[in-house]
Amino acid sequence: MKIGFIGLGAMGAGMAGNLLRAGHSVAVYNRTQGKADVLLKNGATLAQTPSDACRGREFVITMLANDEAVQEVVLAKGAILDALQAGAIHISCSTISTAMARCLEVEHHRRGQRYVSAPVFGRPEAAQGKELVVVAAGQPESVAACMPVFAGLGRQTIIAGTDPAQANAVKLCGNFMIAVLIESFGEAYAALRKSGVDPKLFLEIINGLFKSPVYETYGRLIAEERFQPAGFRLELGLKDVRLLLQTAEENSSPMPLASVVRDQFLAAIAHGQKDMDWSSLARVAARNAGLGA
Amino acid sequence: MKIGFIGLGAMGAGMAGNLLRAGHSVAVYNRTQGKADVLLKNGATLAQTPSDACRGREFVITMLANDEAVQEVVLAKGAILDALQAGAIHISCSTISTAMARCLEVEHHRRGQRYVSAPVFGRPEAAQGKELVVVAAGQPESVAACMPVFAGLGRQTIIAGTDPAQANAVKLCGNFMIAVLIESFGEAYAALRKSGVDPKLFLEIINGLFKSPVYETYGRLIAEERFQPAGFRLELGLKDVRLLLQTAEENSSPMPLASVVRDQFLAAIAHGQKDMDWSSLARVAARNAGLGA
Amino acid sequence: MKIGFIGLGAMGAGMAGNLLRAGHSVAVYNRTQGKADVLLKNGATLAQTPSDACRGREFVITMLANDEAVQEVVLAKGAILDALQAGAIHISCSTISTAMARCLEVEHHRRGQRYVSAPVFGRPEAAQGKELVVVAAGQPESVAACMPVFAGLGRQTIIAGTDPAQANAVKLCGNFMIAVLIESFGEAYAALRKSGVDPKLFLEIINGLFKSPVYETYGRLIAEERFQPAGFRLELGLKDVRLLLQTAEENSSPMPLASVVRDQFLAAIAHGQKDMDWSSLARVAARNAGLGA
Amino acid sequence: MKIGFIGLGAMGAGMAGNLLRAGHSVAVYNRTQGKADVLLKNGATLAQTPSDACRGREFVITMLANDEAVQEVVLAKGAILDALQAGAIHISCSTISTAMARCLEVEHHRRGQRYVSAPVFGRPEAAQGKELVVVAAGQPESVAACMPVFAGLGRQTIIAGTDPAQANAVKLCGNFMIAVLIESFGEAYAALRKSGVDPKLFLEIINGLFKSPVYETYGRLIAEERFQPAGFRLELGLKDVRLLLQTAEENSSPMPLASVVRDQFLAAIAHGQKDMDWSSLARVAARNAGLGA
Repeated sequence: MKIGFIGLGAMGAGMAGNLLRAGHSVAVYNRTQGKADVLLKNGATLAQTPSDACRGREFVITMLANDEAVQEVVLAKGAILDALQAGAIHISCSTISTAMARCLEVEHHRRGQRYVSAPVFGRPEAAQGKELVVVAAGQPESVAACMPVFAGLGRQTIIAGTDPAQANAVKLCGNFMIAVLIESFGEAYAALRKSGVDPKLFLEIINGLFKSPVYETYGRLIAEERFQPAGFRLELGLKDVRLLLQTAEENSSPMPLASVVRDQFLAAIAHGQKDMDWSSLARVAARNAGLGA
Repeated sequence: MKIGFIGLGAMGAGMAGNLLRAGHSVAVYNRTQGKADVLLKNGATLAQTPSDACRGREFVITMLANDEAVQEVVLAKGAILDALQAGAIHISCSTISTAMARCLEVEHHRRGQRYVSAPVFGRPEAAQGKELVVVAAGQPESVAACMPVFAGLGRQTIIAGTDPAQANAVKLCGNFMIAVLIESFGEAYAALRKSGVDPKLFLEIINGLFKSPVYETYGRLIAEERFQPAGFRLELGLKDVRLLLQTAEENSSPMPLASVVRDQFLAAIAHGQKDMDWSSLARVAARNAGLGA
Repeated sequence: MKIGFIGLGAMGAGMAGNLLRAGHSVAVYNRTQGKADVLLKNGATLAQTPSDACRGREFVITMLANDEAVQEVVLAKGAILDALQAGAIHISCSTISTAMARCLEVEHHRRGQRYVSAPVFGRPEAAQGKELVVVAAGQPESVAACMPVFAGLGRQTIIAGTDPAQANAVKLCGNFMIAVLIESFGEAYAALRKSGVDPKLFLEIINGLFKSPVYETYGRLIAEERFQPAGFRLELGLKDVRLLLQTAEENSSPMPLASVVRDQFLAAIAHGQKDMDWSSLARVAARNAGLGA
Repeated sequence: MKIGFIGLGAMGAGMAGNLLRAGHSVAVYNRTQGKADVLLKNGATLAQTPSDACRGREFVITMLANDEAVQEVVLAKGAILDALQAGAIHISCSTISTAMARCLEVEHHRRGQRYVSAPVFGRPEAAQGKELVVVAAGQPESVAACMPVFAGLGRQTIIAGTDPAQANAVKLCGNFMIAVLIESFGEAYAALRKSGVDPKLFLEIINGLFKSPVYETYGRLIAEERFQPAGFRLELGLKDVRLLLQTAEENSSPMPLASVVRDQFLAAIAHGQKDMDWSSLARVAARNAGLGA
C-alpha cells in the first residue's frame, strides 16, 4: 500500500522500516533529514514536507512527540489536513490527548478524509522488532482498511472502539499502570532501606510473586539506580500522566493515584531529572525519606 | 522435629498439614477445636492451650490474625512466653506489625528463648500445596535452625535480615504492591468505562504487557466484579496498609500511594465492603466517578 | 477616562457601574444585551461588538468566564487585538490561566498595545459595593496608568509584579486557600458526625479560634448544607484549581493538597453538583464516609 | 475546690497557676520537680507521686504529652487509677487519642471514679492568661461538677457531648484545620516563589481576605522562615494528625487532606525538623519544588 510516514524518532524509524520490509511503498518525512538515510537505502521515498508525504498516499501515519507537534504537522496551514486526498486515512500512532484525537476526527471528517487513532505499546526495540501492540479505534470500515498496515507494525492489534479517542485513553491508562508501579517500587524501597533491608532482596520476592517482566525491568533499574541513558524520558512520563488527568477530568473521573504520581513527577523535574529515565521517579520517594540523592 | 502449631485458619491448617507430611511431630492448638480434626487424623497431637502446645517443643509456630491475637496467645499471663522452654524458638508466621515483632524479640530474649519472624506469601491454596514463599529474619543461628521447618512449609525461603522486624516490613511492602495495583485497576477501569471502553479489553492489553498472574487474577476479579466469596477480606487489606504506614512512620518514610490506598479502604468499609474480597477496593474509584454500586 | 468594559456578568455589571459612578466614560459590551440596560440608564454607551468597545478608548477591561471566552473576545479575528489603538491598555480582570496572560502580553506588545493583568478578589456583593481587592501586575508605567481605574473598582490595589502572569498566579493561589479550607471542613465535619459530634458545635470552636469571616461563611454553608443558589459555582472552582495546577506544572511545583481538592471536585461533578455552590465539595467527604447524600 | 494537678509543662504550669489564683487548693506533681517552685510559692502543695496528688482531692487534672505518659501516670500500678477516691473526677486536658479516652472512661467507671475529657485550645501564653478554650465531654453531671474548675482555666467552655472521646475528636479536628492551613501556605508560597512573587505580598492579600489572626501568625512565620524556637514542636503536630487518622479509621471516615499532611510531616522529620515549630512543615513543599533548604 502507499503510505506516508511522518516522524522518524526512535520509535518511528523502526516502524517505517518494518512497513518497507512488509512490501509497502513508504514516503518518509522528518524534520531532521539525516534520520531518513537508512530508510532511503531500503527503498523509502523522501518527502520534503508533511504535505509532500501525503500526495498520492492512501494512508499517512504520524508518530510525533506530542500534541504540539501534531498541531504543527497536521492542523497548520498547508499541512496534512490541507494535503491529504479525500478518502485517505490519517493514522495517528503518537501518544496524544483524547481532546486532540477528537479534534483530528472532526477536522478530517469535514474534509472528506478519514482518521484512526492507533497508539502503540512497546519500547524502541519492540518497534524495530515488529513486537508492538497496536491499539486502534475509529470508524469500523476505516479501522478494517488499516489492518494490513497494522500487521506491518506489530505483533497484535486490539480494537478499542469506534471513537478514535478511546484508543488514546487506553494507551494513557496503560502508561499510568506502569507509572504507578514505578512509584510503588520507589516508596517500598525507601521504607525498606530505612528498615535496613536491601531493595534487591525485596525485588527477588516481588519477582517470585508477580512474575512480570515489567516488574523485573523497573524493579532492577530502580534498585540499581540506573537512570541514564533514558529508555523513556521522565518528562514524557509526566506528559502522559497530564494527558490522562485531562481525559479523566473530561470524564469527571477522579484518579488519586495518578494525582500523586503527577506531583512526584513535578518534584523530580524540580530536581533536574527531566531527561533521566522515568524510573528515576523513585528518587523522589527516597529523597522525601531523607535518603541521599 | 517437635513443633507446636497455633492458629488453624485457612492458612494455618494447610501449613500444619505439610509439617506433618514432612515427618515432623506437631502439637496443634486452635481456639475453635473442630478445625484440628483432620490434622489429628493425620498424626497431630491436640494441645488444650497455647502453653500446652509449647511443652517439650523445640519450635512453636503462630499463625494468627493480628497483633491482638498475638498479644493474647503469646504475651498474656500463662501464654507462650511463660511456657516455652529456654532455647526453643518461637516462629511467628502471622502478618503482624514491626513494633510487635520487636516486642516479641525483646520478651523472648529476656527469658532465654529465641524468636524468628517468618511471614509467608501465598493464598490458602499455596499454603495447602506447600507453595508458600517464607520470608524469615532473626539471629542467623536461630534462622538456620528453622530451615528444616521452613522447608516443610513452602517452596522457597528468603532471609530478609538479622532483625526479625525486617521480615515483617518486607511482607507488608509486598501486600502494599498488590493493594496499589488493585487501586490502579480501579481508577483505570473507571476512567475507561466513562470513555466507553470495556475494562476487559483493557485487561487483555495489560495482560499482554505485564504478563503477570497477579495482574491477570485481580484484573479479572475487578472487571467481573466478583468480590464474594473473599479470598482475602478487605478489612485485612486495610489492616496491612495500616501496619505498613506505622512502620513507615517509625522510619520517617512518607508513602503517599499507601496513604491514598488507606483512604480508599476506609471509604470501602464505610460502604459495607469489609467482608468482601479486597479487590472490591476498586468500587470506591467507580463510585467516585459516579458509576453505580 | 475613556473605558471599554466587556463582560457584564454578576461581577462585571457591578464593576462597570462603579466606574460610571466614579465619573469615567464607559462603553459596555455583553453577549446578551439585556444585561446592559441598567448601565445604559446610568450613562454608559452601548457597544455592539467587542471591537466597538475599543474604539477611541484608553482602556478596555475584560471580565469574562474563562480562557475560552478571552480567546474569542480578544484573540479572534476582528476582536480586541485588532481593534485596540496603539498605546491603549487591555486590563484583564478575569481569572484566567497564567499561560493565557503571557500570551496576551506578547500579542498586545506586538501591536504596540499594552496589557495588565488585574484579577479581583471578592464576591458579586463586593463588586457592587466597590469592596474588591485588585491584584495587578504588568509593566510599571502601564500599571501606574491604570491606578485611577482600579481606584474606581475596589477598596485596595496590590501590585504583584512586573510580569502580568504573576497577578493571575496570586489570584489562583488565593482561591486555592479557600478551596482547601472548604475541603478541610468537609473532612472534619464528616469525621465528627461519625463520632456523634454536631458540626455546628465544631464551627463555634473554629470561629472562636480562627476569627475569620471566610471560615464563618463557609463553615456555616457546609454545616447547614445550603449549596443552592450558588455564590460561586463548583464547576468554576474546579476550573481555578485546574489553572493553578497548570501554573504549578509550568513551575515544577508539586501541590499535593491542590491535587486532592481537584479529585474531590471531579467526584462532586460526577455526582451532579457542578451548578451548586463550590462549598458543596464537602459532600464528597461525607459521601466517602458513608454519610447520606 | 481540692484539685490535684499533674504535668507542669509550658501549658500545665500556667493552668495550675490560674487555678490557684481562682482560690482553689491545688496539689501539684511533675516528674521534674523544679517546675513546681513558682507554684509552691503561690500556695500550691507539693505531691511526691501522682497518687499523692489524688489523696483527698475531688478532682485530679492531667496535662501530659501523650498517650504513653497517660498510660504511665494513670493506668500503671499504683498510679491515679489506684489512688483516686470514689466519686472523684479525673479531668484529662491532654491531647490524647479517642481510644485512650474511651479506655480511661471504662477504667475509672469500674472503680466508681468519674472521667471527663477536657482538652484545651490555646498556646502557652493563652494558658497563662486564662484565655484557653476548654472543650469538655462526659456524663452531664460530671461535666457540670467540673464547671467551676474550667472557669478557672479559660475564657470559654464548650460541651462537645456525653462521650468523653468526643471532646478529643473535636480537639484533634481543630489541630487538623491548622495543620492543613500551614501546608496550604507552604504549597502556595512555593508555587508563587517559583513565579517570582514574594510570599509576603501574597500574605498581605490573604490577611485582607481571611482577616484571621491564625493565618496572620502562621503566614508570617512561614514567610520569614522563623521556625525556632518552636511554639509547638513539629513532632507533636505529627502526633496529633496520627491520632486524628486513628479516630477517622475507627469511624471509617477517609481524610485525604490529613493523609497528605501526615506524609509531609514524615518528610519533615526525615529532614531533621522534629524539634522545629510545626509551621516548618512548609519547608517540605518548598524542597519538593526545588527551593533551597
